[in-house]
Amino acid sequence: MRSRTPSVNPKTAPPTEGQVTTGPIYRSEKVYEEIDFEGTTLRVPARRINLTNGEHFDVYDTSGIYTHTDPELNLKEGLAKTRDSWPHPDAVPASDEHPELKVRTQLAWARAGIITPEMAFIAHREGFDPEVVREEVAAGRAVICANHNHPEIEPMIIGKKFAVKVNANMGNSAVTSSIAEEVEKMVWATRWGADTIMDLSTGRDIHETREWILRNSPVPVGTVPIYEALEKVKGDPTKLTWEIYRDTVIEQCEQGVDYMTVHAGVLLRYVPLAANRVTGIVSRGGSIMAAWCLNRHEESFLYTHFVELCDILAKYDVTFSLGDGLRPGSIADANDEAQLAELRTLGELTKVAKERGCQVMIEGPGHVPMHKIAVNVEWEEQWCEEAPFYTLGPLATDIAPGYDHITSAIGAAIIGQAGTAMLCYVTPKEHLGLPNRDDVKIGVITYKIAAHAADLGKGHPRAQERDDALSTARFEFRWHDQFALALDPDTALDFHDETLPAEPAKTAHFCSMCGPKFCSMRISQDVREYAKQHGLDSVEAIEAGMQEKSREFAEAGGRVYLPISAT
Amino acid sequence: MRSRTPSVNPKTAPPTEGQVTTGPIYRSEKVYEEIDFEGTTLRVPARRINLTNGEHFDVYDTSGIYTHTDPELNLKEGLAKTRDSWPHPDAVPASDEHPELKVRTQLAWARAGIITPEMAFIAHREGFDPEVVREEVAAGRAVICANHNHPEIEPMIIGKKFAVKVNANMGNSAVTSSIAEEVEKMVWATRWGADTIMDLSTGRDIHETREWILRNSPVPVGTVPIYEALEKVKGDPTKLTWEIYRDTVIEQCEQGVDYMTVHAGVLLRYVPLAANRVTGIVSRGGSIMAAWCLNRHEESFLYTHFVELCDILAKYDVTFSLGDGLRPGSIADANDEAQLAELRTLGELTKVAKERGCQVMIEGPGHVPMHKIAVNVEWEEQWCEEAPFYTLGPLATDIAPGYDHITSAIGAAIIGQAGTAMLCYVTPKEHLGLPNRDDVKIGVITYKIAAHAADLGKGHPRAQERDDALSTARFEFRWHDQFALALDPDTALDFHDETLPAEPAKTAHFCSMCGPKFCSMRISQDVREYAKQHGLDSVEAIEAGMQEKSREFAEAGGRVYLPISAT
Repeated sequence: MRSRTPSVNPKTAPPTEGQVTTGPIYRSEKVYEEIDFEGTTLRVPARRINLTNGEHFDVYDTSGIYTHTDPELNLKEGLAKTRDSWPHPDAVPASDEHPELKVRTQLAWARAGIITPEMAFIAHREGFDPEVVREEVAAGRAVICANHNHPEIEPMIIGKKFAVKVNANMGNSAVTSSIAEEVEKMVWATRWGADTIMDLSTGRDIHETREWILRNSPVPVGTVPIYEALEKVKGDPTKLTWEIYRDTVIEQCEQGVDYMTVHAGVLLRYVPLAANRVTGIVSRGGSIMAAWCLNRHEESFLYTHFVELCDILAKYDVTFSLGDGLRPGSIADANDEAQLAELRTLGELTKVAKERGCQVMIEGPGHVPMHKIAVNVEWEEQWCEEAPFYTLGPLATDIAPGYDHITSAIGAAIIGQAGTAMLCYVTPKEHLGLPNRDDVKIGVITYKIAAHAADLGKGHPRAQERDDALSTARFEFRWHDQFALALDPDTALDFHDETLPAEPAKTAHFCSMCGPKFCSMRISQDVREYAKQHGLDSVEAIEAGMQEKSREFAEAGGRVYLPISAT
Repeated sequence: MRSRTPSVNPKTAPPTEGQVTTGPIYRSEKVYEEIDFEGTTLRVPARRINLTNGEHFDVYDTSGIYTHTDPELNLKEGLAKTRDSWPHPDAVPASDEHPELKVRTQLAWARAGIITPEMAFIAHREGFDPEVVREEVAAGRAVICANHNHPEIEPMIIGKKFAVKVNANMGNSAVTSSIAEEVEKMVWATRWGADTIMDLSTGRDIHETREWILRNSPVPVGTVPIYEALEKVKGDPTKLTWEIYRDTVIEQCEQGVDYMTVHAGVLLRYVPLAANRVTGIVSRGGSIMAAWCLNRHEESFLYTHFVELCDILAKYDVTFSLGDGLRPGSIADANDEAQLAELRTLGELTKVAKERGCQVMIEGPGHVPMHKIAVNVEWEEQWCEEAPFYTLGPLATDIAPGYDHITSAIGAAIIGQAGTAMLCYVTPKEHLGLPNRDDVKIGVITYKIAAHAADLGKGHPRAQERDDALSTARFEFRWHDQFALALDPDTALDFHDETLPAEPAKTAHFCSMCGPKFCSMRISQDVREYAKQHGLDSVEAIEAGMQEKSREFAEAGGRVYLPISAT
């Protein structure tokens, strides 16, 4: 008789430590700088890239303990609840408009002139003075997504004065993927630099999946509560009620969700504005609310109960991400009246939320051609009190499904340069399927590129340091350092080794593109060396003494460079 | 006794028909529209995408006969020499400055008020009036790269008024690849939309490789003659002479090369300007000429013999691509004095070349952060008489080797929108190795995205039609049409099938992202249908009669959408 093991549903089985990626990134180690905050030590993480010339280069790091050499993981227990031991201030007035309302949010504290441990941590992490962080939060130009019930995270900031951030979406659906896969996607996305992740699960086990992600995520987690609420009414939007939604939000706040997308700007009267669009309403949340409003001919409960919602989110310091339910889903629909009408309403709601002490960011498009991108930031800043803008792409064209990480990276870089604070990644599977682990990595790296290009473009003070370090390594043929300083060292190394796998090729003063005889970098180095030796490092010098020097040089050897091989 | 077959060197063996990719692109067929030109029939190609709703959508096509259903290939004979039978005008004065000099170039003909068969062909292909094409060529704002000795090509135009074009580089090196591989790369690149290709071979068999490519290419072919000249002096730049270079250029002109990169702006006095750069001189041609100038302390022979060179190129109507030998190779070096000094000299040379009847375009950077990109176009237009700008990227950051198709697509889209006429692709292998066939495709598709985003951004009259057709197909759940209208139907189809491979999923009114219950597109369609049926397609209508209609709707069924499956 054969023994039978109890059957385990692989989709809901608890993830195990072996299922997540751990260990350092290429030639890197995790370092923590310890800073004192009112007698408490805050440990601010960075990734230290060790270079072959004995120097090192530290970069912003989002990956938590997973990139330690031998991390002590316990997924069931979750990460250490570090922030619980930090000294947090007492409640303060929500705002000048509502001084009687006392809250414990980063916004209210910042307005009260208080620097929180989160602000101190972030200031060190970003290379700004803590007072600058406090000022930006107080003005509502930056948000710190950090639910009191999510003590596991390493605090980060979203605001245009700071480095542009990247969000990675994940989550299972009715059709695919397991809890373990989603936890690994979170670990994997943060390994490559995701600053926040959103759990957009719509299938079964939404609560359970989210719990595993929250307890093990080193970065803030966002959700769209309407998805779970809709599951509770078996997918029929007309059955949704404020009470069901409210209870879902409270449940998620209790769990520790750090920011929530709320499509409270999809008003009944805006729905017909989308009827004649090429692609109608493409936001899931937006279409759910549109269906609800239209069917019941009532104003959206998200709008009519917005003040109540504010007071729930304020209690936990959950940040609003006011969703763009009417964002354009095609080039044809960009910047149309439906989109603009909703954005004006989001501005109105921003004011309400901030008066109740809530932090707010605003979600943005979508699909927008290049010449219509920058004005989106102008409108957002004007109508929404410069609340941090958080955009999906935008995709600069509709014609490349399978490559929408690229169509959207173009738009993302442009909108980031124009002032967008966080970019929601798009993967190659956009419009076609759900991203797998490889897609998540490609999406994150692509968006780190867009965010960094935007940082350079908007003049972030530290952005160019990494470009300079990598380009110097490239010019000096320090191949290993070039790989290590890259956003994705593994891929850079693999691509190099495809043509020249031997280890000596990684110290050689040439590469496979030109071969040993044609290397412009080598010639160029020789030019530099020659110019230096002969005092020819200025136009004046060369014009004055060039002929003589040239003669000497020709006599002394006559070659500007010597080929490595004689062939 | 065993028989022995003669050994064949796989690197130099003639390519065979079976080694190149043939056959139609997904759901497409090649169509030719016949137009009469002075009694001669010109057959203008297009790719017709057949849609499932009975309609079709024609797109610009660069792929020649290779995408016919059963192309009759003979690689040894090459493509039909179609342009040989077209009626070409006699020689006309090169310019007002040099009326005694008679040439047969598109520029001189255009200035003389003559519309050539190439102009008529291009006008039809791009959707412009032939007179507009002639005017742009006459002004030097556009070029038609069409060597008299390259009758196989389907003429195309490079100019900012027209669709932004994409060039794909290929060519073997001392380290890798065979002639057959290079011919297939050409066929493969044009299949996916490359408008021109450049053969940058630096290894052995440069002439032979180029011959195979030229005779079989449906698109113009560019080269950098200094590479072959350098091979002739065994790789020692100091041994180069004007005579060796001149003979190489004549040999390539005779073969049929359509445009040539000439780094004639790297002057002796500019070399020291590059000595203190982070990445020195990164252009191969630029570094070769810098080494030559520095070693001999002579002015560049490309500069001192430029008029002679013009007269050679004019004889064949080979277009100058004035190379940016001092382009920046890193963010740190962008827009520096070395780059600008060379660009001013290219402007001077543009004037000389045009006076001798030559067509000219100008090559541009390189590595440039976003905020420094647009001014490059301004300088180029101001200093170089608006000659078509032809840029490599530019890469918007240095920190992502392995993803430089993406770092550069961001820059390429921006510089294309600003007025650049042709974008030289960058593949994922940039800085790391030579592109293989997959890399070539990724590079081309990525650059078709950048070019199309630029066309939308600069308001090209026909650009948005394809976005609208694809988005309409997407909204109507015509999956096959969405794939067929994509830049890369095969990849879109593969990605979709990874999650939902069954054929019914391609007609289903949902996809794997949200599953059947959550589809915003479906809800949105239902909203549209509902609004239309009830006359609610305006804000006024909904405000007037919404309550009544809503009641009727709820009574009639009460659901805005019906899930396909009951689960």
